[in-house]
Amino acid sequence: MIFTPKEELIKRVNKLQEKMKANNCDGFLISQNVDLFYFSGTMQNAQLYIPIEGEPILFCRKSFERSETETPWKTINTKNFKLIPEQIKDLGIPTPECLALELDVISASSYLFLKKLFNNQELVNGSNWIKDVRSVKSPYEIEILRNAGKKTAEAFSQVDKIIKPGLSEFEIAADIENLLRQSGHQGTIRLRGFNQELFYGLFLSGESGTKTSSNDGIIAGAGLGPYFPMGPSEKKVNVNEPLFMDYVGVYDGYAVDQTRMSVIGVLPDKLYYAYRISLEIQDLVINQVKPGCLASKLYKIAVDKAEKSGLQDNFMGYGQDGVKFIGHGIGLELDEMPVIAKGFDIYLEEGMVFALEPKFVLPGSGIVGIENTWVVTKNGVEKLTVLPDRLITI
Amino acid sequence: MIFTPKEELIKRVNKLQEKMKANNCDGFLISQNVDLFYFSGTMQNAQLYIPIEGEPILFCRKSFERSETETPWKTINTKNFKLIPEQIKDLGIPTPECLALELDVISASSYLFLKKLFNNQELVNGSNWIKDVRSVKSPYEIEILRNAGKKTAEAFSQVDKIIKPGLSEFEIAADIENLLRQSGHQGTIRLRGFNQELFYGLFLSGESGTKTSSNDGIIAGAGLGPYFPMGPSEKKVNVNEPLFMDYVGVYDGYAVDQTRMSVIGVLPDKLYYAYRISLEIQDLVINQVKPGCLASKLYKIAVDKAEKSGLQDNFMGYGQDGVKFIGHGIGLELDEMPVIAKGFDIYLEEGMVFALEPKFVLPGSGIVGIENTWVVTKNGVEKLTVLPDRLITI
Repeated sequence: MIFTPKEELIKRVNKLQEKMKANNCDGFLISQNVDLFYFSGTMQNAQLYIPIEGEPILFCRKSFERSETETPWKTINTKNFKLIPEQIKDLGIPTPECLALELDVISASSYLFLKKLFNNQELVNGSNWIKDVRSVKSPYEIEILRNAGKKTAEAFSQVDKIIKPGLSEFEIAADIENLLRQSGHQGTIRLRGFNQELFYGLFLSGESGTKTSSNDGIIAGAGLGPYFPMGPSEKKVNVNEPLFMDYVGVYDGYAVDQTRMSVIGVLPDKLYYAYRISLEIQDLVINQVKPGCLASKLYKIAVDKAEKSGLQDNFMGYGQDGVKFIGHGIGLELDEMPVIAKGFDIYLEEGMVFALEPKFVLPGSGIVGIENTWVVTKNGVEKLTVLPDRLITI
Repeated sequence: MIFTPKEELIKRVNKLQEKMKANNCDGFLISQNVDLFYFSGTMQNAQLYIPIEGEPILFCRKSFERSETETPWKTINTKNFKLIPEQIKDLGIPTPECLALELDVISASSYLFLKKLFNNQELVNGSNWIKDVRSVKSPYEIEILRNAGKKTAEAFSQVDKIIKPGLSEFEIAADIENLLRQSGHQGTIRLRGFNQELFYGLFLSGESGTKTSSNDGIIAGAGLGPYFPMGPSEKKVNVNEPLFMDYVGVYDGYAVDQTRMSVIGVLPDKLYYAYRISLEIQDLVINQVKPGCLASKLYKIAVDKAEKSGLQDNFMGYGQDGVKFIGHGIGLELDEMPVIAKGFDIYLEEGMVFALEPKFVLPGSGIVGIENTWVVTKNGVEKLTVLPDRLITI
């Protein structure tokens, strides 16, 4: 098993401590599993206390043995998290006057519990500092992401053997999932957003591909029923309809996002046209990406091209459920920073990793588009999802 | 697609309204996807307002079309949830003086947002009322659970073809997952607890089966690495070691939980002895189950038998990570009420559904045990996980 190197963890913690200093906050208590892993190297039942200076302390409830092996930080065996303020004091660390918490993910009950526990301290939301730090990936992380892109490509290079007319979306999806899993896919896809779920990805065919749902994505698919309103359904796939494969490959904790199109037979002209435009938009946008470019400008480039192509009403959704983004950060979670969206005035930095997904929804016909995961390099970008962009014809 | 019948939803809402009355609370705003589905029949991006009397109102952000089709309740198209108090007023419904929220699952940020939004109202935690209502399943739900038990049994009846010496836990797990998925398994297993995850279940072999982790279960397995510290690992399975298969079957939204043991060759004597005792504990406990019996007494029966058998140190875990329960409620989520645990003085009721899992952890050797999902009937219990309890010998 690979453990995150200590130097890597030190750099991450230092970056967060800089954000804390800039915001006059002298302590951060981290609870969420992904953030815990990112800053400590372990994902046990624990809370990580990061003081404004010096090394973090991990308060672990279970498994102490496991967390002690996995993290380089001092680990305290804690039966109950209510002992944390006392244990901080016992270690000779100053009690924080302003304590940051991950208010976007910890529960209201936890918040009220911590408010009582740290009764003289100001509690602030430090989630955005964490999101900012996590948005820029280190060479260590990029190497893991590169491998995830390769593994995903290897699995998908066999997808043409799976797709057959007469099979249902669900049956084909089950086999795609098995391909991914057998190649070492972690299974669970982590999302930070409340109520957000995704199971491997979306295999959708024809009109099914135009169904929206509760998720933050462009579309969702029909799914199995109201209790799982997204993803593949029992609809059979037909010839000459767009087969949409939007999948998340998660290996060694890190996710890449990739969409490819397939068709049994021939894609009808208007769908093929929209598909070609999505590839052109990808090229136009990617050619502009380098450190210092503005996320909202990339969005504008994409929208302008869709308009010039006469497809503005179909770009990134149709009707009231259309979305105003073309890409999103990705890493340990699927929904990371930066978002490449309307009004999102953030400058891209070297090391940022994002999925770019220009897509068109044609009511009654289906969804077409492309998606790749990219890392911003010193002078441009590197493509992490290395499977060729071609339309897979069966 | 099957939609939850209106009469079913009315009964659920009425039960919650009784709890609200008993607690002097005149409104409930529900946000979490599972609770939304349970009380409205739809799982869209929405919030459900349940007044103390009369029918609920669904405020839906996305997809309006889908939620309107799936729920019998009045559905309001809402661009922003901050409009809810105003929209409640516009409908002629009194503004609540005491508003219940699901404080165990909504984020601290949402709580602070709602606190500001409903600025003159008292906010209380209504999660336990929901958990109580959901703990007693209706005949409609029991029929769905019965089918889930059958489907899980069908998939597992083929498991002996999958297990072979020399394969890794991970490779075998991938094939078990595929069996389940091909039979219609929903994929995602829903857990209410913060940071809790499970991917299909646990296939563990020998000593791997003794590894604990951050999860609330008895054990977790080694997993793939610190970033996913549970479930199958790359360890190869050997002859004469316990193969532990703890899987969750989720069909039509509802989950059953089932553990079976397998062995290639022969289970060593001390493991076989512990396995036999787990079956005896299951029989002893199940014979006592009927409406009105006390959960904590069932736990005592199990612990007493483990003690008499000389296995008290191995029952339900070993050392500091051992757990103090033998069963848990199950339904739309894996971690429902009631818990069958030490000090849990709740009386079982007809319609409650629970998984009972007497298990022994033998350090250095592995974990053995049994798990089935049961529904409390008028006079006793019905077994939902109908796969025979036998040890599967390869």
